[in-house]
Amino acid sequence: MATRNLLLLPGDGIGPEAMAEVRKLITAMNEKLGTGFATEEGRVGGSAYDAHGQAISDADMAKAMAADAVLFGAVGGPKWDAVPYEVRPEAGLLRLRKDMELFANLRPAICYPALASSSSLRQEVVEGLDILIVRELTGGVYFGEPKQIIDLGNGQKRGIDTQVYDTFEIERISGVAFELARTRQNRVTSMEKRNVMKSGVLWNEVVTATHKAKYADVKLDHMLADAGGMQLVRWPKQFDVIVTDNLFGDMLSDVAAMLTGSLGMLPSASLGAPDGVTGKRKALYEPVHGSAPDIAGQGIANPIAMIASFAMCLRYSFNMVAEADRLEAAIAAVLDDGLRTKDIMSEGKTEVGTTAMGDAIIAKF
Amino acid sequence: MATRNLLLLPGDGIGPEAMAEVRKLITAMNEKLGTGFATEEGRVGGSAYDAHGQAISDADMAKAMAADAVLFGAVGGPKWDAVPYEVRPEAGLLRLRKDMELFANLRPAICYPALASSSSLRQEVVEGLDILIVRELTGGVYFGEPKQIIDLGNGQKRGIDTQVYDTFEIERISGVAFELARTRQNRVTSMEKRNVMKSGVLWNEVVTATHKAKYADVKLDHMLADAGGMQLVRWPKQFDVIVTDNLFGDMLSDVAAMLTGSLGMLPSASLGAPDGVTGKRKALYEPVHGSAPDIAGQGIANPIAMIASFAMCLRYSFNMVAEADRLEAAIAAVLDDGLRTKDIMSEGKTEVGTTAMGDAIIAKF
Ligand SMILES: CC(C)[C@H](C(=O)O)[C@@H](O)C(=O)O
Ligand SMILES: CC(C)[C@H](C(=O)O)[C@@H](O)C(=O)O
Repeated sequence: MATRNLLLLPGDGIGPEAMAEVRKLITAMNEKLGTGFATEEGRVGGSAYDAHGQAISDADMAKAMAADAVLFGAVGGPKWDAVPYEVRPEAGLLRLRKDMELFANLRPAICYPALASSSSLRQEVVEGLDILIVRELTGGVYFGEPKQIIDLGNGQKRGIDTQVYDTFEIERISGVAFELARTRQNRVTSMEKRNVMKSGVLWNEVVTATHKAKYADVKLDHMLADAGGMQLVRWPKQFDVIVTDNLFGDMLSDVAAMLTGSLGMLPSASLGAPDGVTGKRKALYEPVHGSAPDIAGQGIANPIAMIASFAMCLRYSFNMVAEADRLEAAIAAVLDDGLRTKDIMSEGKTEVGTTAMGDAIIAKF
Repeated sequence: MATRNLLLLPGDGIGPEAMAEVRKLITAMNEKLGTGFATEEGRVGGSAYDAHGQAISDADMAKAMAADAVLFGAVGGPKWDAVPYEVRPEAGLLRLRKDMELFANLRPAICYPALASSSSLRQEVVEGLDILIVRELTGGVYFGEPKQIIDLGNGQKRGIDTQVYDTFEIERISGVAFELARTRQNRVTSMEKRNVMKSGVLWNEVVTATHKAKYADVKLDHMLADAGGMQLVRWPKQFDVIVTDNLFGDMLSDVAAMLTGSLGMLPSASLGAPDGVTGKRKALYEPVHGSAPDIAGQGIANPIAMIASFAMCLRYSFNMVAEADRLEAAIAAVLDDGLRTKDIMSEGKTEVGTTAMGDAIIAKF
């Protein structure tokens, strides 16, 4: 079996603790199943800055480009609030996304049945929720130029960011959304602010044309992004796949994640285009939650989102569908057994730490 | 008593039906209290486009500039989906905001006790909720240039919008937020994406400096806007006043409005700077809900948001605090009596139409 090359970037805060559980899982899989995963390690975020003054080094970027998949923990924390903008922790993640051309960010918002009662929404609103947000990840206001602060004199400064989308960028991200919808409920809702933004007008136009040309079998709706945020709160089950731009995707996927009451459980995948020859696509997998510096180092972080991100990696980077299914079932099983980390603890359940949660999932796998 | 000049712009969809109730209320107040309101009428949105091909005419703009306050219904609907971008219904609203320099948009998200059970959130999460979102309304990506679609040839187009903020714009909107916080719980949370946007870096810097220079007695926190969206869903009562930019404010205030379960009830005020001589400020009041074309013309729209917007008008434009309080109390009273329009109807309550709801509120006033 060909070696499967993984780069592990634990990052900051609870990232390393969560990643440790995935490392154990990988070792166990290699031993029991001969899966042949080879791992390398790298630095990203504040811990990279502390080590060498960059949010990610060129050497680690080269490893990321060469790996079959990157597993990413989390970055950031108050410790680095005052570092220069160019080397702030997030710059490492943004460079990975941009240089690896990871334009498609898949963010499932799933409400685990065992956790429906821990959502701030009524149980009937979120129970059984299973939506997928497909967020454009390498364009828009995140990367558009000019992006700068100008000193105007007189004590006045001007902050500028530029939202830019080209036809091909909208075409390829909507293609991903339509393809994924076909494996689900076959419905896509595209969100933008075409009533205010020219990029929204183009977004709407290109999604509509892509649908007509290649995916007319999929049901397509358009919604203004602000109304979309409202509808996510009102009745999220109306959605199947949502496709939207980088900034709206950032906001909407966070709202959707919080709806489920399962923030510590939600994974994401960031994918590039398939290589024309090998069909392989660059990929990075990361939990939706952040670095949670307030609870870092205490052994209480929930490792499930990181482990579920590895399940997405098995599915999308290695086509190990059976193993991905089994890993997701193992997560559901420990929850059914009543195991809970602190963030999802409720009465009558058994509170466990990061390591015990990881061990329990590996044992069920 | 000096005449109080109001311009009424009912607009599209349910706008005219809701405005009709305010018109009745104004007549009743003039008769009973001698309030001396003089009203003019104008067109905005799709109905203005139908009448004369513009989303608002220069003549109506002149009336708006001259009025003491503008009452605005709602604009838009599928009928005008295909009209050119420059004259789409929303362009009328955006021109009003820009030309009147209404930079401060106040959006209270209040959960009426009688309606806590109609939220999609758990009752304990929203009961008693009372937050105020202060949204910058004349800057940011809504108005920044360049804003255009360029044809690149080869079937490729490029959509561009520009997010721009100058120091003085951030200073004046945060000043409004701090002032209002002093009349409430004295806490402000500022939201931006400084980890991705240069305008966010400047925003954070200027809010911090404004606080230090003039409002150090107010408690100030900073939150990333995506995390802010999450926190609004998780535990909205943690907030008092939220200050944020035009686009984040659009998204976050809609999410906040939906939390309350009272979307048909929520008013907003858009204010300019006080005139240096008279102290008067230009102002426009509008419901948070949209034109709801699906239910327009059926006499079932909820007029409360429009009436509550008029209450804000009494408070902010005419300093008629007692009358504003009484009007808000009248709204609460009819809800306590069990009257409900269709959008907020629940078991055991009495369903009434738009007119009956308006009449009931006027009778209690
Ligand atoms: C860390 C930050 C740069 C990032 C983003 O804004 O994209 C995060 O919020 C996310 O959603 O992955
Ligand atoms: C109608 C539209 C232009 C407007 C906006 O985006 O500001 C609306 O959504 C609002 O929030 O008032």
